[in-house]
Amino acid sequence: METLYAEVADKVLGMIEKGALKEGDRVPSIRSLSGQLAVSVNTVKEAYLLLEAQRFLEARPQSGFYVRRKAPPLPTENASERAYLGMDPKEVSLCRIYGEISRTEKGSGACLSVAIPDPSLMPVKALERSFREALADENHDAINYAFSPGHEGLRREIARQSIEAGINASPEEVIITSGASEALTLTIMALCGRGDTVAVESPTYFNFLQLLESLGVKALEIPSNPTDGMNLEVLSWALDKYPVKAVICIPNFNNPLGGVMPDARKSELVGLLESRGIPLVEDDVYGELAYAAQRPRAAKSWDLSGNVILVSSFSKTLACGFRVGWALPGKYYRQLDKMKSLSSVGSATPTQMAISAYLAAGGYPRHLRRLRQALAEQAGLMAEEVALAFPEGTRVSRPKGGFVLWVELPEGFDSFELYKRVLPEGIAFSPGAVFSNSGKYSNCLRLNAGQWNGQVLRAVRRIGGLARNGAN
Amino acid sequence: METLYAEVADKVLGMIEKGALKEGDRVPSIRSLSGQLAVSVNTVKEAYLLLEAQRFLEARPQSGFYVRRKAPPLPTENASERAYLGMDPKEVSLCRIYGEISRTEKGSGACLSVAIPDPSLMPVKALERSFREALADENHDAINYAFSPGHEGLRREIARQSIEAGINASPEEVIITSGASEALTLTIMALCGRGDTVAVESPTYFNFLQLLESLGVKALEIPSNPTDGMNLEVLSWALDKYPVKAVICIPNFNNPLGGVMPDARKSELVGLLESRGIPLVEDDVYGELAYAAQRPRAAKSWDLSGNVILVSSFSKTLACGFRVGWALPGKYYRQLDKMKSLSSVGSATPTQMAISAYLAAGGYPRHLRRLRQALAEQAGLMAEEVALAFPEGTRVSRPKGGFVLWVELPEGFDSFELYKRVLPEGIAFSPGAVFSNSGKYSNCLRLNAGQWNGQVLRAVRRIGGLARNGAN
Repeated sequence: METLYAEVADKVLGMIEKGALKEGDRVPSIRSLSGQLAVSVNTVKEAYLLLEAQRFLEARPQSGFYVRRKAPPLPTENASERAYLGMDPKEVSLCRIYGEISRTEKGSGACLSVAIPDPSLMPVKALERSFREALADENHDAINYAFSPGHEGLRREIARQSIEAGINASPEEVIITSGASEALTLTIMALCGRGDTVAVESPTYFNFLQLLESLGVKALEIPSNPTDGMNLEVLSWALDKYPVKAVICIPNFNNPLGGVMPDARKSELVGLLESRGIPLVEDDVYGELAYAAQRPRAAKSWDLSGNVILVSSFSKTLACGFRVGWALPGKYYRQLDKMKSLSSVGSATPTQMAISAYLAAGGYPRHLRRLRQALAEQAGLMAEEVALAFPEGTRVSRPKGGFVLWVELPEGFDSFELYKRVLPEGIAFSPGAVFSNSGKYSNCLRLNAGQWNGQVLRAVRRIGGLARNGAN
Repeated sequence: METLYAEVADKVLGMIEKGALKEGDRVPSIRSLSGQLAVSVNTVKEAYLLLEAQRFLEARPQSGFYVRRKAPPLPTENASERAYLGMDPKEVSLCRIYGEISRTEKGSGACLSVAIPDPSLMPVKALERSFREALADENHDAINYAFSPGHEGLRREIARQSIEAGINASPEEVIITSGASEALTLTIMALCGRGDTVAVESPTYFNFLQLLESLGVKALEIPSNPTDGMNLEVLSWALDKYPVKAVICIPNFNNPLGGVMPDARKSELVGLLESRGIPLVEDDVYGELAYAAQRPRAAKSWDLSGNVILVSSFSKTLACGFRVGWALPGKYYRQLDKMKSLSSVGSATPTQMAISAYLAAGGYPRHLRRLRQALAEQAGLMAEEVALAFPEGTRVSRPKGGFVLWVELPEGFDSFELYKRVLPEGIAFSPGAVFSNSGKYSNCLRLNAGQWNGQVLRAVRRIGGLARNGAN
């Protein structure tokens, strides 16, 4: 089994987390663990290399692998307490600031703000081949409309790969969109009107907040933490109190916290919203990017009534520029299909055909495996640099998938000031304040670990150095 | 000058329209007109061939060109009178019916409903070459985001070609969208909220009505006719009476009527809305497809204050499947750019790059010339078939550009019944009722003349034959 090594890695990581292996301990030798778990020597070796890449282990020549000193993890109670205060649904009003931000950033040299992996990690050559194949089609399908719900072959591939997330979907349940962003936009447009309220996590991906702002929809921020995800007790209480039209959540490799909501909580979330007839919008764009053997289940996999609208895309795994995403909208299928048809007839045909051909050719699982390993390594390297370069007391997330890091500087620090300071130097990151509509997280920031090179390394050191010198 | 022949054709057409040349008359010989206008013999020959293609002239062997018997033109007062009744802004409610329609049609054999030209008329090979060029790019730009406002080279080309429409725009004023549909959707989202009112022409492109319906925006139908376009007197009166948030109009080669609003009226329309601070949304997707030498000016060309939002695309001229359109949003630039960024980050990059490369290579004007001539010919052939096959008293539009025909059957006829009758035979057209929210035009229908072949010919004859036999 090709992902056995990652299962082994997970087991070793479990021992570290439970304290069976402590910082500085030597882990079992490759040979002994191989015998113990009845797997090949190579499998254990690969597992140790993955853990080394993630900076959990370090190899010492002639000696073996040792548990590294880690950057302190985020405490699980983290955001909850503060987020709880002043929780009434609010009209969102952070766009004006953030609009300025994103405009300035586009030309930045070391862009740690936009969350995309380095293009060099993507199977560019294979995608080009698939493109040529699509264009060579004799019916000239590539220049014709791919009417919503979109290219049939692609929908079939997406339905097939959804099994990995525990979802049993037919191609007829998939709607192709221009990225997950469009799927989300059309969903909120279909479900909500001006003045309605949508619940989101706190902190949450800033684009959600901006979208709600531009649609005149209020945001209700529910505390979230890296261990449990959205706080369901608070959510339940809030649903009694406020007329919530939809809930947006990123259960897997949350943006920005990086955590995975435990399966039991996912199931509970689905049941809670189902019983109240409130649609759950699940953003799964990072779901495929688990560092471990198996990607986590989507909340959608517990959905029996069609109340969960899953949105996802190939932007983080193949080519963000292709703008190929999808929705599994459950019982909201017709509403979403209509919105998509009206707003753009369908998504671009050639990119749909190219991705469909690429997936059908069969190289995707291998690419994903490599990509996950590279991202694990990069996130590990960057987290380590943060621990070294940033001020005493800084905490950094250690995600188990995806590629964003959440950095919490000491209380009172203003990361927006730091942001403005480094921008003229061609360095950009996402200041914490844009992940909430309530003025929280101003001492936090999000870093994109999708790219890793000398320029990025220097940028992390520069940000940390300035922070250390009290530049805020 | 390469379009001289079309200017000559226009002159001859003028003589026919003014009655200087009557049905059955022999037109001046090629040689004599050549001397008279001081143009080459070849130019006159090409002009006569264009007019023959459009079915205005017919060639008789050994004798010369003669003015054909034409299908009766639509009278200019046409829609106005009826449309005037019951004009209050209304919530749109035709989607349920039309949703069903469009879903059934997609598999149709002879689809005369979707307004697109036959793929064989498009420069498929050249587009493929441009695609390969885009993909060969060493920076892997094709897999990266093309953040809104979109690919710079493409915006430059669009700004350049806008000069043809009388518009002096810089690349910085262009926003790339996924077709004109998306540009329109984002515009209405940015300008209107639920319960607001937007004025449209009557009849108007059904997608406008469906869009307004799904956004909860009311439609105010202003009578329009093929000669003058939207009735500005009625519009002005209605603006006094109702709180209109925006006006959507297709001044050039109107869909469905086919007419061109005279320049003086365009200028008046722009001035009227400017003075009242109401944005004009101009849909120019057919503007490039003039049968004559020169494309008509866009209303936007009279816009000095930035109050006109022009939307257009390459869907009708190159490849609808690429989903490459644009907006020139004037002073609404920032609102639209924000909506576009939020809803899908940007449009697909490879298709933008391919069209940019195609335009830069310089073959577009020649392609357009051929396309216009083919469409002129097809529209002429189809109009003639309609005149032959449909019941006595049927009137058909004779557009001077674009490729949709508006057919008006005798009063009392129900084209929706006819539609349901032919659908099982694999034939589809657009029944008149969907071009209005007020139950008008049920005796009308729209035909797509973008495709012309044996199957289409038989379909037109079949529709006409059934109509003649009173199938309604």
